Amino acid sequence: MIANKFSLLAGTIPTSKEQYVSILLDYIGKTTFLTDKEVQGIVDNMDIRTYKKGDLILQEGAITTMCLFVLKGCIREYRIKNGEELTTNFYTDQQPVSCLIGNPNREPSPFFLEAVEKTIATASTPEEEEAMFKKFPRFEQICRIKVEELMTETQSKMSDYITSTPTERYLNLVKTRPELIDKVPQYQLASFIGIKPETLSRIRKKLAKGE
Amino acid sequence: MIANKFSLLAGTIPTSKEQYVSILLDYIGKTTFLTDKEVQGIVDNMDIRTYKKGDLILQEGAITTMCLFVLKGCIREYRIKNGEELTTNFYTDQQPVSCLIGNPNREPSPFFLEAVEKTIATASTPEEEEAMFKKFPRFEQICRIKVEELMTETQSKMSDYITSTPTERYLNLVKTRPELIDKVPQYQLASFIGIKPETLSRIRKKLAKGE
Repeated sequence: MIANKFSLLAGTIPTSKEQYVSILLDYIGKTTFLTDKEVQGIVDNMDIRTYKKGDLILQEGAITTMCLFVLKGCIREYRIKNGEELTTNFYTDQQPVSCLIGNPNREPSPFFLEAVEKTIATASTPEEEEAMFKKFPRFEQICRIKVEELMTETQSKMSDYITSTPTERYLNLVKTRPELIDKVPQYQLASFIGIKPETLSRIRKKLAKGE
Repeated sequence: MIANKFSLLAGTIPTSKEQYVSILLDYIGKTTFLTDKEVQGIVDNMDIRTYKKGDLILQEGAITTMCLFVLKGCIREYRIKNGEELTTNFYTDQQPVSCLIGNPNREPSPFFLEAVEKTIATASTPEEEEAMFKKFPRFEQICRIKVEELMTETQSKMSDYITSTPTERYLNLVKTRPELIDKVPQYQLASFIGIKPETLSRIRKKLAKGE
């Protein structure tokens, strides 16, 4: 399925969302504690979408203010430059899709989003979030704190990227995101660490030989 | 002046903070409108610090949960790798120091922060922020929205970096952050775009010749 030029692909709604609630609560729970009533209210208001492997969730140039939070699965962010697909991020279990978090000026998307595998995600518009935060002010506080943490993490990843060699970037990926290594084609991993597939191939061979 | 191993350099407090208030309000104002009473309350609670050119604000390995927001000036973020200083970001007027935004687990800093020039910044601990948000809940909402925007911007910068050549990165810097070009030594700009100073020198010569 392919997203149209003007919006995020809607996805399908799973028959039961209860099974995914614990994933969200686990993520939230690291920060603070919510009452049962708050949890129930948040869950009732949650909009969960399922994307099939290969679904194009967002097209370059499309405008969306919708936010996604991956409960389970993998979404790839990429751009196309001189006809070449360049992967710029992967969002996996318990990760907000950070390129979508704040778009108040309704800028057209510079990237594509694609489901690498079957992916279940919460989807929300700023209006839905505002309504939820009005009902559950503590949830707004949690979201603020989580975005702050994510911000520092992302800046740290950016600094790691700038100060690392391609081999160091690959080793870091193997260490910090091992789930990606088998899940994702080599050419996507290669562009994500800023190199050509053949260079990644050489790096892997060298590492396998223990050089 | 040099920060000690365990904290952010305190800086000095300017005699009058009124002159800087408009800078903060301009930043906030883009998002929403606050009442005069809210503005006055926020300003009264603001802690403003001045750093001299060359001040080492934070050392690698130091632990801080303090946040900085640059009102005026320039703070450089860098790491030291194999004895070499590698610049990973510059924070200028109206920019939160994003590497400091959320550190709930009190992780030691992987980077140094230094004042490139005289810099005036707001400084706040999470406890001070909590107290402020309790008094002015709308300010918490503004901060959440601003961090969300910053998050998307930062992810976008990260994607730009991954998909750009060094020449494109340099041209992008000239276009989006022209204030840095004259303010900052060449070797710092070079490492910020992931290249050696001699490569930047070659790029600049080529561009000057119109190649």
